[in-house]
Amino acid sequence: MPRALLVVLDGCADRPVKELGGKTPLEFAVKPTIDRLVAEGSCGLMDVISPGIRPGSDTAHLAIFGYDPYKYYPGRGPFEALGAGLTLNPGDVAFRTNVATVNSDLVVVDRRGGRYIDPAEVKEIENIINNEVLPILRSKYGIDAVYKQTVEHRGVLVLRGNVSPHITDTDPHVTGVRVSEAKALSDDAKVTANYINEFTKLVYEKLSKAEFNEKRRREGKGPINMVLLRGAGSLRNFEPLSLRYRIKPAIIAGVALIRGIGRALGMDAINVDNYIGSKDDDFIAAFQAAARALNNYDFVFVHVKPTDSMSHDGDARGKAMIIERVDAGIRRFLEEAPSDTYVFITCDHATPITVREHTGDPVPFMAWGPDVMRDDVTQFSERACAKGFWSRIRGIDVMNIIANYLGTLEKFGE
Amino acid sequence: MPRALLVVLDGCADRPVKELGGKTPLEFAVKPTIDRLVAEGSCGLMDVISPGIRPGSDTAHLAIFGYDPYKYYPGRGPFEALGAGLTLNPGDVAFRTNVATVNSDLVVVDRRGGRYIDPAEVKEIENIINNEVLPILRSKYGIDAVYKQTVEHRGVLVLRGNVSPHITDTDPHVTGVRVSEAKALSDDAKVTANYINEFTKLVYEKLSKAEFNEKRRREGKGPINMVLLRGAGSLRNFEPLSLRYRIKPAIIAGVALIRGIGRALGMDAINVDNYIGSKDDDFIAAFQAAARALNNYDFVFVHVKPTDSMSHDGDARGKAMIIERVDAGIRRFLEEAPSDTYVFITCDHATPITVREHTGDPVPFMAWGPDVMRDDVTQFSERACAKGFWSRIRGIDVMNIIANYLGTLEKFGE
Repeated sequence: MPRALLVVLDGCADRPVKELGGKTPLEFAVKPTIDRLVAEGSCGLMDVISPGIRPGSDTAHLAIFGYDPYKYYPGRGPFEALGAGLTLNPGDVAFRTNVATVNSDLVVVDRRGGRYIDPAEVKEIENIINNEVLPILRSKYGIDAVYKQTVEHRGVLVLRGNVSPHITDTDPHVTGVRVSEAKALSDDAKVTANYINEFTKLVYEKLSKAEFNEKRRREGKGPINMVLLRGAGSLRNFEPLSLRYRIKPAIIAGVALIRGIGRALGMDAINVDNYIGSKDDDFIAAFQAAARALNNYDFVFVHVKPTDSMSHDGDARGKAMIIERVDAGIRRFLEEAPSDTYVFITCDHATPITVREHTGDPVPFMAWGPDVMRDDVTQFSERACAKGFWSRIRGIDVMNIIANYLGTLEKFGE
Repeated sequence: MPRALLVVLDGCADRPVKELGGKTPLEFAVKPTIDRLVAEGSCGLMDVISPGIRPGSDTAHLAIFGYDPYKYYPGRGPFEALGAGLTLNPGDVAFRTNVATVNSDLVVVDRRGGRYIDPAEVKEIENIINNEVLPILRSKYGIDAVYKQTVEHRGVLVLRGNVSPHITDTDPHVTGVRVSEAKALSDDAKVTANYINEFTKLVYEKLSKAEFNEKRRREGKGPINMVLLRGAGSLRNFEPLSLRYRIKPAIIAGVALIRGIGRALGMDAINVDNYIGSKDDDFIAAFQAAARALNNYDFVFVHVKPTDSMSHDGDARGKAMIIERVDAGIRRFLEEAPSDTYVFITCDHATPITVREHTGDPVPFMAWGPDVMRDDVTQFSERACAKGFWSRIRGIDVMNIIANYLGTLEKFGE
């Protein structure tokens, strides 16, 4: 029974970089393994959504997993919650949150509470909100809720019960103005809006007098006395990948958001030590884990984050070095993976060094495996892949192409 | 802030021409400037609508401006009216018109009234219809209307009030048969159909006894005594380009129809002397005007008409010469345009010399600018562009690709 590895290099596609002699990071990097796969396999360009459209990592991954983001995208809150390891049922409402510093008029002084939050403080904040704020609201509104900090100032709040995602943000998105009032965008959201506005008041009241804020004040730091909410959304009922493509899928991703998307689509998350979406990620370990997982799964997805982060930082050589380390990881994968394994590599969007933001440029795509067509392309790069067998595909086609090689799809018609 | 020029060479894409040694006019023409841009930039093929579909210039331009013609095309009447400089509100009904010669049984003898209409006659015809025919109908139906001649026998009629575009043509499209009766295609169009049938009678009555027709009879010419109507349509409420792509757009087009489309999409029309869509168009002046306009606009569109006209005339060398003169215009553009300008060149459809009509062949597309990928293509032509970075795009993608370089589009997701 054949199996497949799909690697998504986040934001890896790029434009020519002066510092690299007019090459893109993919053209500049020394990556003998990936280029060997390309030489033996076939390539193309991919419009993740459609030409020119700038994808977020969330909409891009939905598309690549085969779910039209125009139809399925629920806003970021739900994915963030899933990524944080919270259980999320269809109907639950999830928000992305920031802990923040406000003054006594609830005017936002720092939207990120200094950004770095001490682990002891994180524990305190979670404790106060989950044990002092949410129970009061629960007894009044009958709405269950859970709050969790994720990375730095960020976190998630999930509501469960008779709730609606159709309310506005309390995060004003700028400093110097008051925390926004949540407004209902539809009649059925009025209770949720009231709940949230009371949440804002209670959080301020309880956090302001918390002990850890006394300590912060003594240290000359602003208090962390507010939780700002944005991106309310409810998860759709996704048909799981296992049913849609008749595969048994697993995901290896350091980034909470991507792992969350995978979970929502029914993929088993495999944890890898030192694989958290940072530039120090252990790619050897991640791809070894992927190779081993293919003994129990017929589809493993590996997400590589720091290619994107390097572009956001404008670090062209750093980006090339990440690509080189991924190449070593894939070499190890090939040594350890079952022999009937297909390998697919692509990107979720371009993040050009020159732009430092996601753009809508097409990205390279490659397929390798037992009976994959061999074309003339010998390099995994934006320009070279344009000449390959696949010419131009869309993100939404990827899983169908993979399932086509795995032979798991039903025939359409007779 | 970057800006962009988009050039559409009307009907420029072609097929191999024997007279040109089996080359297409784009392959035959000497066009060093465009080919230099191609060598420094990247190319592809474009299906304006979809492979094989024969676009009109109107549907093609809608697609290229990002508006799916299957959704947005209102028939040709409204665009013709806009191109003639008439104001057109959503809900107004516009027709394309021909002045014609009919006999006393209203049988069409000449659908074009001899085609060339003397300017004095044009004035008389407009005068009689606007001052003797339409006021009678207005007092009876309460429908405002305006009639205007455009080029040769052609013109437009616009109705405003409680009107519907769902009626059939009065133009029988052939000679030797009676002027057709307008029929309502839906209940709400009955009044409009009655109005139009009475219009036909009144026009015949008033024009037949006009003085200029006496003169025509004395000169042995058939009288111009009918206005045939076709292509009834109402304009949709288009979201303007400025909102959709967050750009400030201008249009340079000699052809009324194209200028009208531009206006309907909220583009400012820039007038250029001796630029009227003829083979003697002053391309140097047009592209100079485009270069200057980019100081006030971040998107300028230039339409080149005579590439298409030459194909309709079957003049392969003439078509190549137009391309060569456009090339000189673009050289002047590059000398005078701001340095952070992107250039995009494509066609709205093919008009092969061998066919003399629009066809659904793919057309070449090229992009050039600060951080545009450089591919191996060195010639702007149908065959060469097939090997480029963009492989194959659609007309509907063009504006998204441009906005992607200008960086004006919101990200979809996070």
